[in-house]
Amino acid sequence: MAQRKLIILTEGHSDPHTAKTACSVIRYRRDEVVAVLDSTLVGQDVSESLGVGQGLTMVSSLDAAADANCLLIGIAPPGGKIPAAWRVIVLDAISRGMDIISGLHDFLSDDDEFVTAAAANSIELIDVRKNDITTIARRPGFREGCFRVHTVGHDCSVGKMVVAIEITKGLQQRGIDAKFCATGQTGIMIEDAGYPMDRVISDFVSGATERLMLESESHDVLVVEGQGSLVHPSYSAVTLGILHGCLPHALVLCYEVLRDAVTGVEHVKIPDLPEVKAIYEVMASIHQPCEVVAVAMNSRRVDDASAAVERERVREQLQLPVTDIFRYGSDDIVEAVMAARERWQASASEQAGD
Amino acid sequence: MAQRKLIILTEGHSDPHTAKTACSVIRYRRDEVVAVLDSTLVGQDVSESLGVGQGLTMVSSLDAAADANCLLIGIAPPGGKIPAAWRVIVLDAISRGMDIISGLHDFLSDDDEFVTAAAANSIELIDVRKNDITTIARRPGFREGCFRVHTVGHDCSVGKMVVAIEITKGLQQRGIDAKFCATGQTGIMIEDAGYPMDRVISDFVSGATERLMLESESHDVLVVEGQGSLVHPSYSAVTLGILHGCLPHALVLCYEVLRDAVTGVEHVKIPDLPEVKAIYEVMASIHQPCEVVAVAMNSRRVDDASAAVERERVREQLQLPVTDIFRYGSDDIVEAVMAARERWQASASEQAGD
Repeated sequence: MAQRKLIILTEGHSDPHTAKTACSVIRYRRDEVVAVLDSTLVGQDVSESLGVGQGLTMVSSLDAAADANCLLIGIAPPGGKIPAAWRVIVLDAISRGMDIISGLHDFLSDDDEFVTAAAANSIELIDVRKNDITTIARRPGFREGCFRVHTVGHDCSVGKMVVAIEITKGLQQRGIDAKFCATGQTGIMIEDAGYPMDRVISDFVSGATERLMLESESHDVLVVEGQGSLVHPSYSAVTLGILHGCLPHALVLCYEVLRDAVTGVEHVKIPDLPEVKAIYEVMASIHQPCEVVAVAMNSRRVDDASAAVERERVREQLQLPVTDIFRYGSDDIVEAVMAARERWQASASEQAGD
Repeated sequence: MAQRKLIILTEGHSDPHTAKTACSVIRYRRDEVVAVLDSTLVGQDVSESLGVGQGLTMVSSLDAAADANCLLIGIAPPGGKIPAAWRVIVLDAISRGMDIISGLHDFLSDDDEFVTAAAANSIELIDVRKNDITTIARRPGFREGCFRVHTVGHDCSVGKMVVAIEITKGLQQRGIDAKFCATGQTGIMIEDAGYPMDRVISDFVSGATERLMLESESHDVLVVEGQGSLVHPSYSAVTLGILHGCLPHALVLCYEVLRDAVTGVEHVKIPDLPEVKAIYEVMASIHQPCEVVAVAMNSRRVDDASAAVERERVREQLQLPVTDIFRYGSDDIVEAVMAARERWQASASEQAGD
């Protein structure tokens, strides 16, 4: 494929929550992004609405980004179906010879109109979630030197993917051969690898995760992105399948300050952080010891002073390093992961009789 | 559909473990079964090899069961693919105008040769696991008087489905409006209802289970079949998705005596029963209180004396009623479920200020 030049569609929904795919692709693959398409914000700097992408401009149509060769759908449509207004844009992009990348549950390649247009224009419809994985987890044993850390959360959309990427970068900066393992559509778009675990048949989620570990185990540290939450009434199956498939040595617990109701099921309360931590440790430790070694706080909804108080409160409560990677950087978490790895290495040496 | 007259295929694998679908269909839909096809055991009474089905004969070909109008595949093929020898039998059945029922992960209706033959003979290929469920769990609240009990296990294939059916029957015999809720292919074949949770996309397992509850909540007690195990490295995602989707008030823990290694992953040990019980109670109690109220022991591998000793040991250890439903009947478990329901009703009255 020619070098990707992306225009990202966020039409009418350019906020960091609904357009989280757009935000993360801009954050981590900035060089490939030409423009963001939201006709309601035309002319604005992208960072004004999305908080990332300074220097990129909001455009009102594909005409304004003539060198783009690929349209990436950067939002999840409210209701799950692609709205009519977006269909027009997607068809226009296809007619200009652009590939389309989508992470939606509804596949472009299951849509007759898109498929016909794609064939006529010789472009590719890339449905990142599409898969036919039928791998059963077998616990074959991973390479001995391969340490696995897994980001987990008290809810959806609290930053598990970003934290995993930042831990990976922090480890790499310290000379450690670390690899980010993507388990969701946005992570896959960023890493060009991984599997869309929430779209895998339930019998095979742990198997798909295990396969991803086996494909990546030449690296010394795997940082595995978590999905959903063990305490989420809708998605805990995905969460546990990944947890048991990657068999982590350490967990990083991600949470958002002030969030106490489950996303999408707001009448259900999220348990307190110590309870969430205990639940993850029970489920992660069935077949090998595994603990939460650090907490990633997402404090976007509070000011600096409140964030500092909350950070101290949770440090005290859980007796663990706590940081907000955007506000304070990732050092505390990266160092906690390194320390956990050293303890694990020491314990492995001891068991080997060294 | 005309009344079903089944011939069940177990060719070369007529043991209660590999042919567990056959055994359960014979046990619970005996009236519809005409014969069992295993040419290696021709002429034998079916009960000799399968332990159920006295009076049914093993036959060597479809000729020997001329009045059958449906072939049911009663075994899971070792390796997952339908062996060539079975293909011939399936095609022969189709050519005779018989419908085919299969619970395999590999769909008959994805096989061009079967599809062509089915069309030519106007028969139906019924893939019990096939589904396109995309329901997200929303915890809408179930009917207030609807008590839900869920059978869970320390491993696969320990009797969760049979125990759920026997609890349902026991409750019905005591005048309670109970309903068995099937979550796997065999249960669906028996009940003609339910969803194949292990074949549902992982994001939707809890949603499919919740839908099944909503469809069934006019009954006073729902007895929900469990799948896999929370401590199974391959299938725990399915287990948790069902557990969180049905939001049970009580659990019945099923285990097999002498089984200490995970099925399919034999180098992994199954935790002790008290630990398994604790793990289930943690995961079941996140949003409402839920405890294990009885233990269903599967003692097929030990003699009467050993079974009695084991039963007493576990009673003492967990301070719960314990029974093997085949050896001792289901009364102890059914009564424990009724007692749990009465406690729940009393507690609900108290909260309502009655």
